[in-house]
Amino acid sequence: MSKKISSDKLSIFALGGVGEIGKNMYVVQYANDIVVVDAGLKFPEEDMLGIDIVIPDISYLTENRDKVRGILLTHGHEDHIGGLPYVLKHLNVPVYGTKLTLGLVENKLREANLLGETKRILIHADSEVELGSTMKATFFRTNHSIPDSVGICIETPEGNVVHTGDFKFDHTPVNDQYADLQRMAEIGSKGVLALLSDSTNAEKPGFTPSERSVGIVLEDIFRKAEQRVVIATFASNVHRIQQVINAAESSGRKVTVIGRSMVNVVSIAAELGYLHIPDGMLIEPEEVNKMAADRVVVLCTGSQGEPMSALTRMARSTHRKVDILPGDTVIIAATPVPGNEKYVGRTIDELFRLGADVIYSGSNSGVHVSGHGSQEELKLMLNLMKPQFFIPIHGEYRMQRRHALLAESVGVDPDNIFITDIGEIVEIQNGSARKAGKVTAGNVLIDGLGVGDVGNIVLRDRKLLSQDGILVVVVTLSKQSGAIVSGPDIISRGFVYVRESEGLLDEANRIVSSTLQKLMSENVNEWASLKTSVKDALGRFLYEQTRRRPMILPIIMEV
Amino acid sequence: MSKKISSDKLSIFALGGVGEIGKNMYVVQYANDIVVVDAGLKFPEEDMLGIDIVIPDISYLTENRDKVRGILLTHGHEDHIGGLPYVLKHLNVPVYGTKLTLGLVENKLREANLLGETKRILIHADSEVELGSTMKATFFRTNHSIPDSVGICIETPEGNVVHTGDFKFDHTPVNDQYADLQRMAEIGSKGVLALLSDSTNAEKPGFTPSERSVGIVLEDIFRKAEQRVVIATFASNVHRIQQVINAAESSGRKVTVIGRSMVNVVSIAAELGYLHIPDGMLIEPEEVNKMAADRVVVLCTGSQGEPMSALTRMARSTHRKVDILPGDTVIIAATPVPGNEKYVGRTIDELFRLGADVIYSGSNSGVHVSGHGSQEELKLMLNLMKPQFFIPIHGEYRMQRRHALLAESVGVDPDNIFITDIGEIVEIQNGSARKAGKVTAGNVLIDGLGVGDVGNIVLRDRKLLSQDGILVVVVTLSKQSGAIVSGPDIISRGFVYVRESEGLLDEANRIVSSTLQKLMSENVNEWASLKTSVKDALGRFLYEQTRRRPMILPIIMEV
Repeated sequence: MSKKISSDKLSIFALGGVGEIGKNMYVVQYANDIVVVDAGLKFPEEDMLGIDIVIPDISYLTENRDKVRGILLTHGHEDHIGGLPYVLKHLNVPVYGTKLTLGLVENKLREANLLGETKRILIHADSEVELGSTMKATFFRTNHSIPDSVGICIETPEGNVVHTGDFKFDHTPVNDQYADLQRMAEIGSKGVLALLSDSTNAEKPGFTPSERSVGIVLEDIFRKAEQRVVIATFASNVHRIQQVINAAESSGRKVTVIGRSMVNVVSIAAELGYLHIPDGMLIEPEEVNKMAADRVVVLCTGSQGEPMSALTRMARSTHRKVDILPGDTVIIAATPVPGNEKYVGRTIDELFRLGADVIYSGSNSGVHVSGHGSQEELKLMLNLMKPQFFIPIHGEYRMQRRHALLAESVGVDPDNIFITDIGEIVEIQNGSARKAGKVTAGNVLIDGLGVGDVGNIVLRDRKLLSQDGILVVVVTLSKQSGAIVSGPDIISRGFVYVRESEGLLDEANRIVSSTLQKLMSENVNEWASLKTSVKDALGRFLYEQTRRRPMILPIIMEV
Repeated sequence: MSKKISSDKLSIFALGGVGEIGKNMYVVQYANDIVVVDAGLKFPEEDMLGIDIVIPDISYLTENRDKVRGILLTHGHEDHIGGLPYVLKHLNVPVYGTKLTLGLVENKLREANLLGETKRILIHADSEVELGSTMKATFFRTNHSIPDSVGICIETPEGNVVHTGDFKFDHTPVNDQYADLQRMAEIGSKGVLALLSDSTNAEKPGFTPSERSVGIVLEDIFRKAEQRVVIATFASNVHRIQQVINAAESSGRKVTVIGRSMVNVVSIAAELGYLHIPDGMLIEPEEVNKMAADRVVVLCTGSQGEPMSALTRMARSTHRKVDILPGDTVIIAATPVPGNEKYVGRTIDELFRLGADVIYSGSNSGVHVSGHGSQEELKLMLNLMKPQFFIPIHGEYRMQRRHALLAESVGVDPDNIFITDIGEIVEIQNGSARKAGKVTAGNVLIDGLGVGDVGNIVLRDRKLLSQDGILVVVVTLSKQSGAIVSGPDIISRGFVYVRESEGLLDEANRIVSSTLQKLMSENVNEWASLKTSVKDALGRFLYEQTRRRPMILPIIMEV
């Protein structure tokens, strides 16, 4: 490859998806053209109290809005498309995706009233997309736990940048959509300047099993089950859903679909031809109780033990339409996402208590396989692409690092491997690459409608409130004499149960009174000092008595 | 109210440790004699906001305090002895334990000022303990992840009740304290009426590897490491600590011990002869930086990613004495307890970012083995004891259930297996057993010093506060005219960042004013109605605008 001499540079960076699992968003810029790959969301960490979702900070994109040529989507998972409604509100650019991906996106945009104003462009595996005057994108089909997933090859004046999207190599895919090995090899033989590749399973040795292996297990379970089969899985896993339908058909059962996102995906995927459902196969939830137990499959949400999901409600006997009965077989066809282990465990326990036979992934049952390739598949991708530069993406730092070691092991020069943080730019010019500073990047926390800033102060207060609650101390002072006219009244929430702690609160009252009286007698009457003194005295007393530190909010009024 | 237990029957129940991992406490009662096995604590669930620890509700024991003959301890882990300081405060009974167990207990009681008033009785593997007029206990040595662990055989007029404690079968134990298979077989051949056995690993097929396998891996790592070795493990795992010392010795390194509980255990175990430390092996943390990097081992706490622990501080570069340097080898010799995966993952990432080589259990590295027996060992115990009745303990419901299936598989009559909840009594009389009601049982939540009740209302408030914060609305009304004299003032904490949301709060102010004025003009002036109306109107407005539901606390004063 000949070295180009140019004053323009190629910049590659992530706004989300590196050093974390979730909110994937990657940016490729050459001269005045910016291309964005994916726009995902992330679920909040445990210290982000009250937050619903987290999306990437897109300041860099809004500040350069005239340069952004579009958002290319690799597939329809929430961590790749879930941020779109928020991003498109601030950045009206075209969105490119395959049929199923756009189908799921459109549903989302409709709910956010953004469908009309968003330009959506359908791509196929052989599409070519012009991106401004300097770049062009082509695509290649991959295997993943949702159909219609693609990798992207972005052709730039510096060379080709390949983004794998999420992938595994499934040699016996459920939908017969084979990964396009030939196209990948062709891209590789033409020369790949930089490869960005999925690091999710970089810690896992070997190969990830084929999705089809789950189908075989399901058929066996469906056939042997003497009563109803209830199966929970990720709503977006259309291949899994297809296999549930197939297993139901071959065991003479009907399927009912329960849970908002599951109903959504099934209808979109069926309508677009990604799910093949025999006539008469689907029944309404209301019909379940009228049918023989061994003729029924309940396909539902809740594989992560989410508190409001269908399976969790069934496990707690609070679902309006389906009760779990002794002898039912319940399959949880998913692995708990880190952080959800306890919720899933609780659901399993509750189902067992109801007398169900529960089959879950912890028990080596074969009812789930990952959608991400393991080490041997990551090496295969590296060897197909033979990149000059390698940027491991889509993973926590330890996974990126492991992926970097894999790249080294197949011959990538360690100096050509860049493990980046969000915002960190890899700049490539004339065939040489280096880290070149940072763009603004971070978490935007969405709570409810996202009105008003939920920043560090708000989160710190929520944390404090959640630990030991709050005491509001109300006192009215006389303007003239400075004497206490009414109060102090102490109102506690989340601190102690008042009826059991009257003595404590009485004493707290006395401490507030005497603190204020002492200050008045010394002619200290700035409110700030009064409030600080009350907070300090009361805080000290409560800590001594209880070893707790509730938030204290003094309200001092004058009449 | 507790159910009365008739005097001629044997009753067995758990006050903690079934349907959960933690706060182990089991009760065996015959006539007027009550024996308690263990008194553990549990760490709070994620919905127990602000709670420090959880202990069993011991109402049944305090109501029957004159019958309680003592607390027998199986071993020195927190989930078996951590509740003692709280229990002994309300129930002054003798405590029986092996040397190391009592050593750890004494340390605890000293801190709680209970050492003087607590009768502590040292037991050996061949001790016999009279418990009231009807029962007697003998002991048998087991293997577990702490030395001096025992199982207990309680002889009662109905027959022998065996409690295994926590156990595995380690045929090559680190301390040469072999499990006493002969004694177990002898107990079995004399006849076991009821067996209570550890279900922790009932879901795991096969055998748990020997602790010694970890030692071999550690020696190899210590020898190959070119710089310092930092190793975090459970402080109580004295075998593991011994192996760290051995590996340090054979690789020519010195060891420094960091972290309060680690320093504690090392000094107690060494003093009592459970840890053999060559002279000059231990160095002070201050000496670490003066020594050649390949001569040092740092043994520390933090294997669970606990926020304030030694390893976490090192990973964040906030430890006062030890910095992690590029090229250091860090070993996390533990599996994350469910719920801690994210914390451990974060610590690993931070260590990698500092340039350390991190070895952890997720990577199949052999640096940790469980202290609990897997399925084959559980079957071995069942076959040694050949119990008539079987009660799986020490586990979540799904583990108890799996353990029950294992018992069935080795020939225990399914009708003789009792999966119980806390408080649920298994009553045995004349050789036949049945479930016979419940005694009071539950969680006692300890927050700080445990002053005042932290019950459901307090937890519910903390949950609400943690989600969307609180708004305090202060208004002063005129006693005569009912007009607003001052306010409304709205103070928010944990809701929105005020400076960015002035418009929202201004509008909220207007809504409170107009709500109050309207009510006054209609002559509604009961405070309760005023407050409720303010709460409703403001809550509705805020939900419409933000989709959040902060707690609203109206404070209305009259002058």
